[in-house]
Amino acid sequence: MTTNLPSEIQEIASRIRPLDEEAIRAAQARLDSLTKPPGSLGKLEAAARQAAGVTGEAMPELSRKAVIVMAGDHGVCEEGVSAFPPEVTAQMVLNFLHGGAAVNVLARHAGADVVCVDVGVNADLSHPRLVARKIRRGTGNIARGPAMSRDEAIAAIRVGCDVVAELAAAGTRVFATGEMGIGNTTPSAAILIALGGLTPEQAVGRGTGIDDARLLHKRGVVERALAVNAVDPRDPLDALAKLGGLEIAGLVGVILGAAAHRALVVVDGFISSAAALVASRLVPACAPYMLASHLSLEQGHGSMLEAIGLSPMIHMDMRLGEGTGAVLAFHFLDAAVRLMGEMATFESAGVSQQ
Amino acid sequence: MTTNLPSEIQEIASRIRPLDEEAIRAAQARLDSLTKPPGSLGKLEAAARQAAGVTGEAMPELSRKAVIVMAGDHGVCEEGVSAFPPEVTAQMVLNFLHGGAAVNVLARHAGADVVCVDVGVNADLSHPRLVARKIRRGTGNIARGPAMSRDEAIAAIRVGCDVVAELAAAGTRVFATGEMGIGNTTPSAAILIALGGLTPEQAVGRGTGIDDARLLHKRGVVERALAVNAVDPRDPLDALAKLGGLEIAGLVGVILGAAAHRALVVVDGFISSAAALVASRLVPACAPYMLASHLSLEQGHGSMLEAIGLSPMIHMDMRLGEGTGAVLAFHFLDAAVRLMGEMATFESAGVSQQ
Repeated sequence: MTTNLPSEIQEIASRIRPLDEEAIRAAQARLDSLTKPPGSLGKLEAAARQAAGVTGEAMPELSRKAVIVMAGDHGVCEEGVSAFPPEVTAQMVLNFLHGGAAVNVLARHAGADVVCVDVGVNADLSHPRLVARKIRRGTGNIARGPAMSRDEAIAAIRVGCDVVAELAAAGTRVFATGEMGIGNTTPSAAILIALGGLTPEQAVGRGTGIDDARLLHKRGVVERALAVNAVDPRDPLDALAKLGGLEIAGLVGVILGAAAHRALVVVDGFISSAAALVASRLVPACAPYMLASHLSLEQGHGSMLEAIGLSPMIHMDMRLGEGTGAVLAFHFLDAAVRLMGEMATFESAGVSQQ
Repeated sequence: MTTNLPSEIQEIASRIRPLDEEAIRAAQARLDSLTKPPGSLGKLEAAARQAAGVTGEAMPELSRKAVIVMAGDHGVCEEGVSAFPPEVTAQMVLNFLHGGAAVNVLARHAGADVVCVDVGVNADLSHPRLVARKIRRGTGNIARGPAMSRDEAIAAIRVGCDVVAELAAAGTRVFATGEMGIGNTTPSAAILIALGGLTPEQAVGRGTGIDDARLLHKRGVVERALAVNAVDPRDPLDALAKLGGLEIAGLVGVILGAAAHRALVVVDGFISSAAALVASRLVPACAPYMLASHLSLEQGHGSMLEAIGLSPMIHMDMRLGEGTGAVLAFHFLDAAVRLMGEMATFESAGVSQQ
């Protein structure tokens, strides 16, 4: 997979190292000394080990966290694939910036920052807190041609890497993926079919809530997109450029950037997972830096996570995106770290072992 | 089910009312006004509705929370069903009181109190923060006879109700069930078979981590317990007294007490769910006051929750008990309440609707 990578991606890939096995062993030894049956905290223990391996610290410090919400529009909306009109993308970006969206509330609850990035919204947006990195005003209609050029996809990946680099330099230790883009379950499903080998029946779901007739229509649109854009399934960048979205490409950059900065990246729902699938195919070494948060109600999400090798912690029947599920999972990461630091050991508490 | 109840239970049952439908409707209207596709926050929205119905307040205030950890010993330990020696029950009670167990750390992380109750530990325990309400020093060995008398089971239920009443009077609005009792997956599995109709193969699991040989032995012990104690499956109190544990009976009281005080009660894993199953069969009106937290790795937990009509939010492969999964779910309740109070509406944010 890593042959034939453009030099920009090659450069990022070269900075992604394997997890620190020594830190993982030290974390495991600590976990096994705590007053509980070995392994009985399940994925909390796995998260503690992973955080240790990612950061190289047996007792990692994860307090500064951010969810990066990438926003972009989709030309395929002209096919009528979404329950909401496309202008909602820009309206919701303003809502994020004013702190009124679900992801803002959940991020405040988790003590995390929300960083909103315009990587491809089809509107002129301006706000002091907006990261304005528009590559183009929305993608092309994938039912008629490519979403964007290969160079545009690489540029959007670069945006994600840059945003992570800046936040990491300011002390952010954990990232979550978030997105906004009316219509973006359609390109995500197309990517899942192209790279994951699923059928349209398995991969195309109801998004924000379309009815049966619109679901059938959406499947047809995805089938046309796949037929029109002859994607090479061994070339994840080709799938991303032809079928994807600018916010999806931006999130590929967030994931690669987090891995390059030895930071955990918590993956949200269906659209974020499409980015995670592309990232893991592009640079497999980034996969150990990812953590799945929730299982979306969107059809195909479970298969998408399996294709990446991830197992979700939260089963809340959510289907909102924005990073809402990923931000909910921050609580579990903090819990894992606190357990490592605050639990008594068998020895200190005088508890008999097995 | 509610015929033939002893007067003490009848009295509690008479104070449990249906959820407040008007508050649920008001919460639903609020949820539908917020900037998200209707229903897209899944179980967070369900939790918000349920909290409204339980408390009778459209915007419920849930800040004061407590996990009640009921502790008791089990005569069946003499059959060698657990990976840990029985003295660990008392040792862990002291660990809870000193704040060093997993549930203490997770409760601090959730901003919740830990209340530890000795309802049947086989040791003399004394600590200023211990709620000392011992009914007897451990149960009888269920493989040879009943765990306790019907009157003892009722007395332990009374303990749970009393602890809830005291905490509710001091302002606690949400409860979680927790427990400690070496050997207590054995009585829980026996209850699941007696009341839920499962086979020993389906219901008996590895507890804190026994090997294949011990698992087979444990199944045989449960089969003997069911044969020796001819339980009437239509009499949940009979199942509780003959097969149960003092901490399980105490948790039945916690659940009934919470419902009587119009408080949500978050159910933890396998043992807590055995108590929830008994409570829901004893007084079906208490079921709408329960919320399932996590799906335990313990075999049979999924079937147990289904038998009560509950669906877990957290899939973390945990199998520790103590209330650890329930306390993790507190974060989601707080999130649900904050979303109701802090999210922008379609109108306030100027976002277009479907």
